Amino acid sequence: MDLIIRSGERHDMSSVLKLIKELAVFEKEPNAVKVTVDDLIENGFKDNPSFFTFVAELDGVIVGMSLFYKRFSTWVGSSIHLEDLIVTEKFRGKGIGKVLYDKVLEYALQQGVQRVEWEVLDWNKPAINFYKSTGAIMLENWYICQINNESIAKYLEKK
Amino acid sequence: MDLIIRSGERHDMSSVLKLIKELAVFEKEPNAVKVTVDDLIENGFKDNPSFFTFVAELDGVIVGMSLFYKRFSTWVGSSIHLEDLIVTEKFRGKGIGKVLYDKVLEYALQQGVQRVEWEVLDWNKPAINFYKSTGAIMLENWYICQINNESIAKYLEKK
Repeated sequence: MDLIIRSGERHDMSSVLKLIKELAVFEKEPNAVKVTVDDLIENGFKDNPSFFTFVAELDGVIVGMSLFYKRFSTWVGSSIHLEDLIVTEKFRGKGIGKVLYDKVLEYALQQGVQRVEWEVLDWNKPAINFYKSTGAIMLENWYICQINNESIAKYLEKK
Repeated sequence: MDLIIRSGERHDMSSVLKLIKELAVFEKEPNAVKVTVDDLIENGFKDNPSFFTFVAELDGVIVGMSLFYKRFSTWVGSSIHLEDLIVTEKFRGKGIGKVLYDKVLEYALQQGVQRVEWEVLDWNKPAINFYKSTGAIMLENWYICQINNESIAKYLEKK
């Protein structure tokens, strides 16, 4: 099998979006994806891009991807946030996810950041076990909080 | 009481770091803060800063701050991550935290992002109740995963 891991380019963004949608279905949020191919191209390929990607190309077809960007921790400094790591269902279990994961960690070391972080659903035991086996820790007593722009507007109007 | 909320400047970063350390103690991680004033100045005031701050100045003294930066969600697009929101202990309970929080939400609307997100410890009930009262949701079934650069190096060496 001829697997190539390379940086994602503009023309890969439709494949990347398909993978994002596939992950949303896996995460039981099939209607959560509002971004479009144009959003990905606009945000990922401007000056100071909002994110970077690696794609996994198998015999010329994109079968997986990772999407990540820098963050800043007030405890340790610069970090990389791994927003998505996806291998299409048909090609799971072949180690492609691990190759993509390793590539992000190598990139993080090259960039000199202090850590890599991401989020995982608590029922996704195979993923959790894999991450732990690599030396990652799980912060189990934090909640992620979100407020969307509609709720923000409503809240600020009521003030 | 003469409260001013304004953007943090280079000369505020020592006060900002004190507040970061105070929050780390509150979060039961007193030794977690590795960043220095120089790190904050270097990362917060370069071209394309890694973060922005608002500071709360009361009668000329900085008593609180918020620190935040942009992220990118593959579901909704641009967001703002609120990394820290801190009011020094002596001045809690006076609504200063709410003013800082509102300021970040206003900034988010101005920037046209889709949402604001942050993290909260599951035992911090007063904070959770406040956030919920503003329209925020808590994602309770996700874990935050982290791997630091030492663990990354060890893992990649073993491959």
